[in-house]
Parts: sequence; C-alpha cells; structure tokens
Amino acid sequence: MKKLLLLFLSTIFVFSCAPKTEKTIDTALLSSEEKIDSTNIKSLFDSALTDGKSYEWLRDLTQNIGARLSGSEGAAKSVVWGEKIMREVGLDSVWLQPVMVPHWVRGEKEIATYTINKVQKNVPICALGFSVATPASGILAEVIEVKSLEEAKALGTKMAGKIVFFNRPFDDTLINTFSAYGGCVDQRVQGAEVCGEFGAKGVIVRSMTNAIDDFPHTGVMMYGDLPAEKHIPTAAISSRAANILSADLKEDPTLKFYFKQSCETLPDVPSFNVVGEIRGSETPENILVVGGHLDSWDLGEGAHDDGTGIVQSLEVAYLFKKNNIKPKNTLRVVFFMNEENGTRGAKEYAALSKLNKEKHIGGLESDAGGHTPRGFSIDANTVNTQLLQSWKKLLSPYGLHDLDKGGSGADIGPLKDENVTLVGYRPDSQRYFDYHHTSNDTFDKVNKRELELGSASMASIIYLMDTYLYSNTPVKP
Amino acid sequence: MKKLLLLFLSTIFVFSCAPKTEKTIDTALLSSEEKIDSTNIKSLFDSALTDGKSYEWLRDLTQNIGARLSGSEGAAKSVVWGEKIMREVGLDSVWLQPVMVPHWVRGEKEIATYTINKVQKNVPICALGFSVATPASGILAEVIEVKSLEEAKALGTKMAGKIVFFNRPFDDTLINTFSAYGGCVDQRVQGAEVCGEFGAKGVIVRSMTNAIDDFPHTGVMMYGDLPAEKHIPTAAISSRAANILSADLKEDPTLKFYFKQSCETLPDVPSFNVVGEIRGSETPENILVVGGHLDSWDLGEGAHDDGTGIVQSLEVAYLFKKNNIKPKNTLRVVFFMNEENGTRGAKEYAALSKLNKEKHIGGLESDAGGHTPRGFSIDANTVNTQLLQSWKKLLSPYGLHDLDKGGSGADIGPLKDENVTLVGYRPDSQRYFDYHHTSNDTFDKVNKRELELGSASMASIIYLMDTYLYSNTPVKP
Repeated sequence: MKKLLLLFLSTIFVFSCAPKTEKTIDTALLSSEEKIDSTNIKSLFDSALTDGKSYEWLRDLTQNIGARLSGSEGAAKSVVWGEKIMREVGLDSVWLQPVMVPHWVRGEKEIATYTINKVQKNVPICALGFSVATPASGILAEVIEVKSLEEAKALGTKMAGKIVFFNRPFDDTLINTFSAYGGCVDQRVQGAEVCGEFGAKGVIVRSMTNAIDDFPHTGVMMYGDLPAEKHIPTAAISSRAANILSADLKEDPTLKFYFKQSCETLPDVPSFNVVGEIRGSETPENILVVGGHLDSWDLGEGAHDDGTGIVQSLEVAYLFKKNNIKPKNTLRVVFFMNEENGTRGAKEYAALSKLNKEKHIGGLESDAGGHTPRGFSIDANTVNTQLLQSWKKLLSPYGLHDLDKGGSGADIGPLKDENVTLVGYRPDSQRYFDYHHTSNDTFDKVNKRELELGSASMASIIYLMDTYLYSNTPVKP
Repeated sequence: MKKLLLLFLSTIFVFSCAPKTEKTIDTALLSSEEKIDSTNIKSLFDSALTDGKSYEWLRDLTQNIGARLSGSEGAAKSVVWGEKIMREVGLDSVWLQPVMVPHWVRGEKEIATYTINKVQKNVPICALGFSVATPASGILAEVIEVKSLEEAKALGTKMAGKIVFFNRPFDDTLINTFSAYGGCVDQRVQGAEVCGEFGAKGVIVRSMTNAIDDFPHTGVMMYGDLPAEKHIPTAAISSRAANILSADLKEDPTLKFYFKQSCETLPDVPSFNVVGEIRGSETPENILVVGGHLDSWDLGEGAHDDGTGIVQSLEVAYLFKKNNIKPKNTLRVVFFMNEENGTRGAKEYAALSKLNKEKHIGGLESDAGGHTPRGFSIDANTVNTQLLQSWKKLLSPYGLHDLDKGGSGADIGPLKDENVTLVGYRPDSQRYFDYHHTSNDTFDKVNKRELELGSASMASIIYLMDTYLYSNTPVKP
C-alpha cells in the first residue's frame, strides 16, 4: 500500500506539477519555404536564449554608463559605447551621424511641500523636461485641481497667481497601458502651455502611470508658441502624492503648495546617431533598419526606456551573423539619439536618407520596454500588412499573437511612405509604466529571458521581412 | 518656423509616443448571445482592474502570515484567514474539510562548504522536502557529477560512500519554462531514491530554474519503496553554485563536499481545505470548482506559488457578486491544503465529492504564478474542448490566445472524468522559476495589474463555462 501510494505520489508530483505545454508547429501545414523559415526562426530563438549577448550589453550600458539624457556626459559616453559594441559584433561598417541636440539640465533636486492641519508634507516631484526653473526662492501658491486641458482653459484667468494641478489618472480598464498613457499625456505635454497663457504661477501634473507609488515620472513638455515671459515652471508629482493632495484639497481648498526647481535649457550641443550595417547579399541598395534610442531621461538608468531596445536591435544583427544568415537586403542597426526630448536623431536620419537617395524597404523599432513579447504593430500598405499578418502561424508558437495595424515608433516614423513597411515591437505592457521616466527604470527590472525572447522575436520578423518584403513591394527608386 | 517646429514636435510627442493599441471586438461578428457575453466579460475585467481585492488579500496572506508549509503554524493561520476572507466576500456558505497532512520541518539552516586551492567556499543549499537529516556532524565526501537518473544508475556501486551531484540544467530553448521544469524535475524527486539504493552518502541537486543566481530551490522528493536505512539526505544547490562546483570538480575531482541539515518528518497533523460557494440559481446540483493551494513551501512567502492562485480564485466569486452575475450552476471556491508535499487536500476533496455523489461539471485551477494572462490549458472531452476553443474571439482581446489541450492542475486533477471539463490557468511563464520554491517568492514580485488581469481572465472563462457548459455536457448523475 505504501509502495503504491508512493508510486502514485511520485507520478502526481513529477508529471502534474510540470505541464508540458511547449508549442510546436504542425509542419504538415507549412509550405516548403515556410518549413525553412520555421527552422531558421527556431535557430534564432535557440541562439538568443542560449548565447544571447543583449543582457550583458544592457548591464554594461545601464550600470556602467547609466542615465544619458541628450547633451549629458552619459549620452556622450553612450555614443562611444555604441560604436565600440557595434564594431565588436563585426558589422560590415559602423559610423556616426552628427546631430545637434537640446541640452536641458535638471539642476538641484526639486523640493515640494505643503502644510495641512499643522503637519508639513514633503511631496515627491520632478521637473518636466524643457520646463523653466522656479525663482530661486521657489513658488508658493494656492492650488486649483483640474482633470483636463479643457477644464483648465474654462477657468481662464481664475487661475492667475495659482498653481494648477492636473490630476486625471490613467484609465485602468484599458488593457494596453500605452492606451492609458495616450489618454493622459496631453496634461504633461501641454499643461504649462495652456496655463501659462492665463497667468498661472506653475503647473504640477499627476505622474503618467497605473501604479500608485512614490515615483515622480518626468517626460517632455512644450510651451508651444507662448512668449518666454509666460513660460511657467512645471513638474510631475507621484501618483500617491497626487491622491493625497487631492484629498487634502477637499479638506482645505486654501492650502498653499510650495515647489522649487532649478532646471534650465542650455545651448544645443553636438551629438550622434550610431549606425552600423550588414551589407545585403542580393540587393544591398534596399535597406531594412532596426533600432531603438540611445538617450534616456536623466532619472534611473534608462533600462526599459530604451536600453532594451538598443541591445535588442544590435542582437538582431548578432543573431543573423551567429546563425550565418546573410540578409539579402542591407540590415542596418541604428541607435537613435534624442528620442526623449526632440527626436532630432530620427529627423536627421530621415533627412540624410532622403539626401542620399537611400531606399528603405522596411523598419522595426523597439521602444516599448523589454518585457515578454506579444507581437508587432504594423504601419504599412494593405498588401504588406496582409503579408506580415500571414506570418502568424510561424510566429505564434513564440507567443507572438498580436499583428495589428498601428503605429511603429517615433524614431522610424519619419521614414513613413506608402512603400516602406514600418513595424513596432510590442512586448507585454503591464509593468512598463511602473518604470517609465523614473529613477526606478533600472537594470534589475529587466528579466534576461524576456529580453532575449524580444531579440529573437525581432530577428525573426526582420528575417521574414528580408526574405519576402522586397518582392512584394513595388519600390520606386 | 519655431511655431511650426513646436507644433510638429508636440504632435510627435503626444501621439507617436503613445500608440493606442487597445483592442476591441468587432461586434458585427458576434451573435446576440456573444454580444451579451462580451459585455459581461468587459464588466468583469473593468471591476477587477478598478475595484479588485486580490492584491490587498495577497499582501495580507503573504506579509502577515507568510510561509505556510503543511503542518506549520503558518498553514494553520492561513486556514483561519481563508475562512474569514471567504465569509467577508459573502459567499452563500463556507466550511472546512478536515484532512490529515504530512508535517516535514526544515530544522536549522543548512550548511554546505568545500575547499579548493585552499579557498573555502560556502554553498547556498536547502534540504528537499521529505529528505532525512544528515548525521549531526554532517556529511563529508567526494562528489560524482551526473546529468541524469540513467547516468547515476549506470554508476551502480561506484557511488557508494560518495555524494552524487545531479546537474542537468533547464533547457533554455524551451519557450514555456514549465516544459523545462518538466524535463529536469525527476532529478529532484527521484535522485535520492536512485542513489540510496547504491549506497551513496547523499545527493545534491541543481536548483530547478532558468536563472543563474544564488537561491536554492526546495521542492518535494521521494524515497519510493527504499527501506529506511537507505534513505540518504538530499538538498538543492543554487544554479550559480552548481556551475562553480562543476568547474571546480574538473579542476579537482577529489575535492570533498560537506553538508549538514537537520530536517525531519514528524507525525501527520490535522489541517483543512477551505471551501465556499455561491449556490447555483438554476442547476445548483452542478458544481463548477475554482481553486488554488493555500499551503506553500517554508522558504519565502508563497506569493506566486500559490498565493496568487488563492486570491484569484476567490476574486472570481467576488467579481460575480460585484457584477450581479448569478451563476446558474454552483460556483465553488476551494483553497486546497498540501499541494506541495502530498496533495492530500486534493485527494480528500475528490473523495468527499464522490462519497457525497456531487456532480462536478468543470474546474479551473490557478497554480502557475500571477504573471500576465496568456490563456488556459484544457483537459476535457473533444466536444467541450472545441466549445472552449470557440470562445477565443471573446477572450483574445484580453491577451488570452492560448487555448490548447493539456493538463489542468494537481488539485483539481483527481476530479478528472470524461464529463468533467478541467482547465488550468496559464499566465506568462518566463519569470516563474526565478521565484518558485525559494526565499525569493515574495509579495513584491507580484504586479497588481498582472494579478488582477488573471482574476478577470479566470472569472471570464468560469462565466462562459457556467453559461454554456452544462447544455453541452451529457452529465450522468
């Protein structure tokens, strides 16, 4: 009985705790070309997961260089690093594209505080990118809370001399957190422009996140065409502090909020996109570009935004070489500079491409974090969109189910054209805005396998684009 | 020009950084019943994401109770907690099912060490569940490294007096990490049984993980029908230490490994499954069961294994009540006891169900962690498997693409029958074995949205099973 019981237990433990749910493709359903593709894609995944370099590259970039906002010393170091690492991979050619970039600096750590019921509360804030400083003594004013730009505009001059507090939270019911971001980020980008017009003294904006925590999230803001004298200082406030401030304002609508920041915009400085390529074996004049952005915000280490995109983009080329897959078209890797506050690198890359009459047939951007792959977003003509969607049976065993029409990314976006197939890599989005633009965006938040699966996913779609796209694209030279 | 530039920049930043990739169902493709289903599923997700309780329940369970191995004080407290929390949700009835459970205790913290090139190395190990202790003075012996049970068996009595070191790593090329686990766990479960037979002094086993880190992973082992005098002590060694030891053995095959552990198996103790239900409005005699396991290993806090399954299972009932969805069949929530080392709770639940002539029409288990939902594994007859797979269009907007045939789970597995539809919840698996059975399985590793999306996914498939399963299932009373 004991023996039987143990045998039974052993069976239960060994097998029922370990569901073998590995997916395989029914090769009977594949054409002979697709069988080759399937084998090559498997090789790309196997290499990434057993011999990938992206994780150690990311460790180096994030921990030895760290934050790298355009114009900073970190950004300059990352350019040197980028060129060196591309050469190590053995690309056929590697070069730098000069570009002038904005140079905004945060200055001293920001301070924010207010007192209610005789208790002073310190508030986690951070200046928004391109914001002006407060006066050296800071700003002290009553607060008006609003939920939207429209609500702020309706206040008109009632906001004069006040601090306007934008507090519309993410819509948590949206499954894709980028959708929630898209529904809120106007407050951050345009809040100070709207309120500067009506004489507000400053603007604070709820951080762009689903999480309720103590991290303020920076990000770019714009004064539009407001004259300089109407440029008012603006900062992000953590989501938890926003909730507390909102409650405190209900209790005491006359409480005065104080904040101080010393950021400033300095003259533009020279910087670079880092570019490398494997020359195409059949039609080298046709270019497939894959990239992410090398710059990051000054808080944190720029791990998920966008260190992961950088190392994954280079790993696409590494995996091609490792597996001896020679691209028919030229495979170009670009580390774009200044995505965060200017996209100057992206514009320069597109302008130079036009100037040099380069012929891009497609592009892939990774700038949505380094979490588990879910798929790609396709910005292409109907024929090529359908072509990419027909690869679903090859990609879905790797968890790549999303192949919907949509945007690609800010850095390859300027290449958009009827005959250019642009693709955005789309990993799982749930945790992304826990880290985005905060001091919490650090290397330890990136999982090695998730990162490598992303590299392999990107390499796979680039492989398929390289194999099939040209013949389906009536490219005009 | 500046104005135009700013306008252009503003457009770029606001829109291209925020791809609106929210998925919607084309309702034109849905039948009138499916439109109702789609609306109800959306409500379940909305509630989970804006008013879910699972995350705070999990905080309470993991941080105020923590580890809860069968027979421990933590396990006893978790039963009290489980009954209380079920009553708070307002289930129609809540009760305890008595069950005797094993009572294995780890004793003092394990020690392991060896010396090479005059340098002493301390090795992170932990005893495996049900292992015997070493002698009080520990074990010191030479080490033989093997990669499999077969290789060990082939050694035969050559292993007498030695420590056998099982060191077959996870296959990193398997996309689903549970597949890799399934391919390695025999070393942990049966290693000591195989080597005890041939007079080995002890067994150490590489931890069950893809990660290379310093956490030893415990888990159950079995002596099979070996007589007690052949029961040898066995422990897990961290993956990094396993790599180092393997390299050191190549340098010095005669190095002596020392380890000491004081674990023991005490007499069985009484414990309980915690059961609650919402009585069915139409066919209350038909039961749909949803559950996870309340016990955990003694290391860590039992967060992903299986605190998340516990709180998600209860949240299914909570979301039904919150949305005023009255199940047609009885919806029963079970917190199973002793999944980790005995599955006694599961067996007792199935035995009582049989004794009381209960009629289960389906079951759902969550015991694969609390990460982002990917789908479900279906263990059912062909008709019902196809029925469940037909719900893909309702579930895929929530990222639930995997609806494959496969196992369900160790706790509902004993209910298996031709007419019972068993389902295993399958979240993303990439990070799971970073935490599994270690001191690293703590609350902070769980993301609130990922957890809540899981609750809503489970509630959605239970809603569909409740709506459609009975009419498709020729249940014999």
